[in-house]
Amino acid sequence: MQKKHVVIIGAGFVGLNCAKGLADVVGVKVTIVDRQNHHLFQPLLYQVAMAGLSAADIAAPIRGILSGSRNITVLQTTVTRVDAQAKCVHTDNGEIDFDYLVVAAGAKHSYFGKPEWEQFAPGLKNLAQAAEIRRRVLLAFEEAEKTSDPVRQKQLLTFVIIGGGPTGVELAGAIGEMSRFTLTRDFRNIDPRLARIIIVEGASRILAPFTEQHAAYATRALEQIGVQVWTGSIVTGIDRGGVDIGKERIQAATVLWAAGVQASSLSAKSGWPMDRLGRAMVEADLSLADYPFVFVAGDMAHCCGENGEPLPGLAPVAMQQGHYLGLLLKDEIKVKRNDAGLRRPFQYQDKGQMATIGRSLAVLQMGKLHLTGVLAWLGWIVVHIFYLTGFRNRFFVLFSWGWSYLNFKRGARLIVGRKWRFWQGDR
Amino acid sequence: MQKKHVVIIGAGFVGLNCAKGLADVVGVKVTIVDRQNHHLFQPLLYQVAMAGLSAADIAAPIRGILSGSRNITVLQTTVTRVDAQAKCVHTDNGEIDFDYLVVAAGAKHSYFGKPEWEQFAPGLKNLAQAAEIRRRVLLAFEEAEKTSDPVRQKQLLTFVIIGGGPTGVELAGAIGEMSRFTLTRDFRNIDPRLARIIIVEGASRILAPFTEQHAAYATRALEQIGVQVWTGSIVTGIDRGGVDIGKERIQAATVLWAAGVQASSLSAKSGWPMDRLGRAMVEADLSLADYPFVFVAGDMAHCCGENGEPLPGLAPVAMQQGHYLGLLLKDEIKVKRNDAGLRRPFQYQDKGQMATIGRSLAVLQMGKLHLTGVLAWLGWIVVHIFYLTGFRNRFFVLFSWGWSYLNFKRGARLIVGRKWRFWQGDR
Repeated sequence: MQKKHVVIIGAGFVGLNCAKGLADVVGVKVTIVDRQNHHLFQPLLYQVAMAGLSAADIAAPIRGILSGSRNITVLQTTVTRVDAQAKCVHTDNGEIDFDYLVVAAGAKHSYFGKPEWEQFAPGLKNLAQAAEIRRRVLLAFEEAEKTSDPVRQKQLLTFVIIGGGPTGVELAGAIGEMSRFTLTRDFRNIDPRLARIIIVEGASRILAPFTEQHAAYATRALEQIGVQVWTGSIVTGIDRGGVDIGKERIQAATVLWAAGVQASSLSAKSGWPMDRLGRAMVEADLSLADYPFVFVAGDMAHCCGENGEPLPGLAPVAMQQGHYLGLLLKDEIKVKRNDAGLRRPFQYQDKGQMATIGRSLAVLQMGKLHLTGVLAWLGWIVVHIFYLTGFRNRFFVLFSWGWSYLNFKRGARLIVGRKWRFWQGDR
Repeated sequence: MQKKHVVIIGAGFVGLNCAKGLADVVGVKVTIVDRQNHHLFQPLLYQVAMAGLSAADIAAPIRGILSGSRNITVLQTTVTRVDAQAKCVHTDNGEIDFDYLVVAAGAKHSYFGKPEWEQFAPGLKNLAQAAEIRRRVLLAFEEAEKTSDPVRQKQLLTFVIIGGGPTGVELAGAIGEMSRFTLTRDFRNIDPRLARIIIVEGASRILAPFTEQHAAYATRALEQIGVQVWTGSIVTGIDRGGVDIGKERIQAATVLWAAGVQASSLSAKSGWPMDRLGRAMVEADLSLADYPFVFVAGDMAHCCGENGEPLPGLAPVAMQQGHYLGLLLKDEIKVKRNDAGLRRPFQYQDKGQMATIGRSLAVLQMGKLHLTGVLAWLGWIVVHIFYLTGFRNRFFVLFSWGWSYLNFKRGARLIVGRKWRFWQGDR
């Protein structure tokens, strides 16, 4: 029997869950393609950026995760475009033919048409960016310690986070804690507690996906660790020295971007119908209308939920979609079904959402259950540990957090060289 | 009373041990200067390069280590030269005056007058280099999996380590194990066990500081995990595609340098008398002959042992010298002694040496005690864990190793982007 070839682009939550559903299924061979060699647990990426965890705590080699399934091949390369008509994926490493294709290459930051802002305000989507953010934040304290110019010192100790969604709140909370607790005894010329951390949010409140009460709670909790929340503030300029908000200027050496995202440009390159955020328009079964054997999922898909709104770019959505596609393809290939009209539609089970505000505080929303404070934080910990890929990581992250929690130290507080060309260095 | 200012250049084993000896001593203020923000436990650096440990497992922020002592200031900057006459250190961040100076900026790789080899054969001295070596080794397997050209595949699966000292043996052993055990099930087109690993050593045997028996044991142990040991082989050329040994050519995509080292160029820049490896010539108390208030120690010092030979660049030497200098300075400042002739000389207590050859094998030499095999390896583990700085690290490294030992996985097997300018990327 000729095996069906399923190609999966992206080893994120969609890709891995789909691949696992097809593991060792007779009559199927799977190729999973990713530019990186590792799967990344993105919900904890801010912890790596904030020196609470190491990269290896939240990432695992894709090959290692899938090595047990002999029908799955992992390929590290970059996809340039998909020719759905010809059933062919174009990569830097040649072409790959497929019978079924799952496209889930995720999202990247959107700078609202100002790509030049990126160098001044990095976003947080991969390990390299997390390392860069960590470097900038830690170096700002180092530089502030060295300078004797009070104006420059103030600028170095000002951190602006653009965007008041969950990621922005988590980043700001972590910087707040680091300055209030972790670093307090480390410096001699500055008091890290004087660091000024500002969340700049365009809307009238932070944490848009949560309730008004949750947003108010988070705002108060943030203010207690020195984070100012500026709502209704539209960024009009970013440069090396700070941020412009209309006529107002914040002098800040470190600016982080947690505002807009847009889908991977793969849909655009492949000529598929998209919404204005670059997400491919998909049918109820996540396939493209013209190509029922091509599925787009995760942050790349415009897939409507029960209320008619597109589903948000959250980990649970991607996990459920990956799981759904794995079952669908297994089923379809097994019974040799050819009519896409018989597929049952994808239905999102809303498990709620949560965001942390530093050590032991969080907001959590699960159906009618609304929690704030320590209980919400414990819920957050349990859910995140549970979903971390691989036992080693769960185990280590738990220890790492336990330890950090007890002594407020951040073990991963390392600045690793700016210069790529390290061999030029000499002491 | 005017406090005496002790400046320490370098937060390695010398610097930290000296600083700890001066912690909270009345009448002394200490400034410790390093280009990096972290102390690095160099003996385990090869584990980071080989994906067995994360950077945070073997490195700790200098500020964190010394934060308890209010008389110690940490400064992250680069020292450009020392003016011993004027008692002044020149840095990228201005000048620092001192009463006493301890210089211990370590060593870097020496390419025997061929600096152009460095880009093809990186050495292993800091975290950035460890990350680069890890990237090259892991990517070689990835590329080999992708290519269909058998000649290129063989080249990609050939790893050459230049230098058969302890570091070279440890690196080769780790690559051998990774290919034989860790990666075996991860690939579909290649068999990682076919990887060819070659140690190229110019002398007639490897592990020069050890006995003939130890070297022979290590050679056999290496051969069992697929490492070839080429002794009496002088490298005459290195390029992107491989290594020349006289008229012989090894086609190898990955070449690592573990051969020569030379002292930091700081002695040269400061105009001090040096040996041909760039080490400053020091008196029995580690001070410079012309400047009794300037001490040079660790890998930067040419300090003779009992047998008249210069002491080797080993961690125990640096630790003991740092400890010695801390005591000497504390004593000298306390009793306001002005005659350097009254100082007792530094005496090295030889605690022996050891080298590992992968999982559970090692060679160990402590005075008359010569061990090989599992017992030596256990000794190695105990000593290394014991000296790791900070409880968190010891604890984590132990767990990390225990876990790797049980299941042969290398958790830190991550390739993090080549391109520094990550923001140009798009999937």
